[in-house]
Amino acid sequence: MSKQLLAHINKYIKVSDDEFETMQGFFTLQDYDKKDMIARAGTRCNFNYFVLSGCLHMFFIDDKGTERTVQFAIENWWMTDHLAYFNRSKTGFSIQAVERTQLLYIHHDEQEGLLSQFPGLEKYFRIIYQVAYGSALMKMKYLYDLSKEEIYFHFVDHFPEFAQRVPQYLIASYLGLTPEYVSEIRGRKRS
Amino acid sequence: MSKQLLAHINKYIKVSDDEFETMQGFFTLQDYDKKDMIARAGTRCNFNYFVLSGCLHMFFIDDKGTERTVQFAIENWWMTDHLAYFNRSKTGFSIQAVERTQLLYIHHDEQEGLLSQFPGLEKYFRIIYQVAYGSALMKMKYLYDLSKEEIYFHFVDHFPEFAQRVPQYLIASYLGLTPEYVSEIRGRKRS
Repeated sequence: MSKQLLAHINKYIKVSDDEFETMQGFFTLQDYDKKDMIARAGTRCNFNYFVLSGCLHMFFIDDKGTERTVQFAIENWWMTDHLAYFNRSKTGFSIQAVERTQLLYIHHDEQEGLLSQFPGLEKYFRIIYQVAYGSALMKMKYLYDLSKEEIYFHFVDHFPEFAQRVPQYLIASYLGLTPEYVSEIRGRKRS
Repeated sequence: MSKQLLAHINKYIKVSDDEFETMQGFFTLQDYDKKDMIARAGTRCNFNYFVLSGCLHMFFIDDKGTERTVQFAIENWWMTDHLAYFNRSKTGFSIQAVERTQLLYIHHDEQEGLLSQFPGLEKYFRIIYQVAYGSALMKMKYLYDLSKEEIYFHFVDHFPEFAQRVPQYLIASYLGLTPEYVSEIRGRKRS
């Protein structure tokens, strides 16, 4: 199953099977059921997660008690609170399985060890973060620029796989819309 | 002046003066006046900018013709449309000097050359992007979680230097507020 991580790394840099054999020792494989909690707000953010199958979402509870999703991760995505992970501090976000999920996780200290033993991986993680950061800036543009209805259909058109798999109320939360509003505009399109 | 970039790199990795001498050759030094345009929406995003002094903002024009700022950069910050830069595609953002600004810029191809000649710099850029991405996720949390008034005072409390230097209408734009609303809540605090 971890061959999947090797294939993902090899999209950006070259790692041999032998090197990867050693790299694997830094990771732990774990299965989660739908709705299982993987990390909780208020705890120290020690781990980085690579999704092999399934789907995660990262959220916080706002002051009205509503879950607000800020990020999804499906196959071949890394997920954590990257700032808290970098600073080894407590996180304000929780991470939960949206569906049955299998992932590899790595502890902060282990990731430092991995990178110092295999400095070639710095390029891999540089690209992962560069693209994720650029995408976050684009998301801000869409949230500012598009009408609520356009935000929803832009998301559905660009990420059809998500729209199929992820419950509507989570997509609504991620886009800053209410579930009722999403139902309404979906009905409008169908009619 | 580029000693400043060396000092910034040396916060995260070790680069000798001799190595940096060669690295400098990849960059161009440029001065801009307040309000000068540095990059324009609709053009190919070929450059990455490191601010030595001054301040930049990155913005787009929304469908009502309003400038919407998505990012600032002051001393020691990198700025570009990172996704378009990575994909070598056209950008939907413009970059402009908020005040008199001196920066170093590097072409995409040159940055690839720099990284392949000095792979140790991958770690430096990995950390730059990791922290920037983590911060973008935090910004989304604040935008969702806080009231408009809290968003403004959170920003002013956490980035007092910005609040002093950057015109209020740009801060308002960055926080998704109207300039009138920012004037109003500033007046309220003073009274």
